[in-house]
Amino acid sequence: MKSKLVILAAIATVYVTACAPAAKAPAQVTAAAKNKIRDVLLAQSDCWSRSDLECYMQGYWKSDSLLFVGSRGLTYGWQQTLDNYKRSYPDASAMGMLTFDVKEMRELSPETMLVVGKWHLQREAAKGNLEGHFFVVFKHFTDGWKIVADHSS
Amino acid sequence: MKSKLVILAAIATVYVTACAPAAKAPAQVTAAAKNKIRDVLLAQSDCWSRSDLECYMQGYWKSDSLLFVGSRGLTYGWQQTLDNYKRSYPDASAMGMLTFDVKEMRELSPETMLVVGKWHLQREAAKGNLEGHFFVVFKHFTDGWKIVADHSS
Repeated sequence: MKSKLVILAAIATVYVTACAPAAKAPAQVTAAAKNKIRDVLLAQSDCWSRSDLECYMQGYWKSDSLLFVGSRGLTYGWQQTLDNYKRSYPDASAMGMLTFDVKEMRELSPETMLVVGKWHLQREAAKGNLEGHFFVVFKHFTDGWKIVADHSS
Repeated sequence: MKSKLVILAAIATVYVTACAPAAKAPAQVTAAAKNKIRDVLLAQSDCWSRSDLECYMQGYWKSDSLLFVGSRGLTYGWQQTLDNYKRSYPDASAMGMLTFDVKEMRELSPETMLVVGKWHLQREAAKGNLEGHFFVVFKHFTDGWKIVADHSS
């Protein structure tokens, strides 16, 4: 009888170690992820509004596989995306003040989130304001949530 | 000894039934998913080019939560998306012939795929051709892969 109990305990151990869900409930994990992603977007708008593109780009996956679709079409790679931004926004007056208005966050998997909303650039009268929509996929890495794919229009 | 073997078999059964990976290798599953998604896009371009918007819309998730970002901004819902298409493309000459040029398919999870590419509308000279980029999230449902979120520009 004792050996049966030991082996039942072994079965339970195999099951729990192999299949145990994370300690937190999924809804808590999702809410925490959404807050972290909002923090990334806030940091990005702060960086942009200080005309610091390198800082703004910290919100993106630093990889040649970063995917960016914008007014210049499809671009691959973190460095190329930064270079395009530098060409389109060469100085503080072109950059202006950036705000994001998040409309939707949808969990696609525990590691990926679709985030959709409006972006707005407040600029001096001679330049004029700009705005449009962003539609980005965030992925969770060991150093936080990063944009891995972006379609802004 | 025999009872130990029986119980070891039970452990193995618990492990296999609870945790067994799918029979196919992940790469095969992903390749099959990509083919199925290409089929959906081909069916959509066929439907569009026959001026059949209801048929075209079968590629989209039939839900009020379908997310569509286009020239009209952010729209929710399958029916609203169809209604917008009907307003923008009221007849065959406005619709023309649709082709998709898929540039990228990225698995975000076993159930979701990001698909990016160019769309092109070949139309009569008076209307002029149109083209742009699409950036869509497909999700796998029991009745196949459907677009759950779309940003076309």
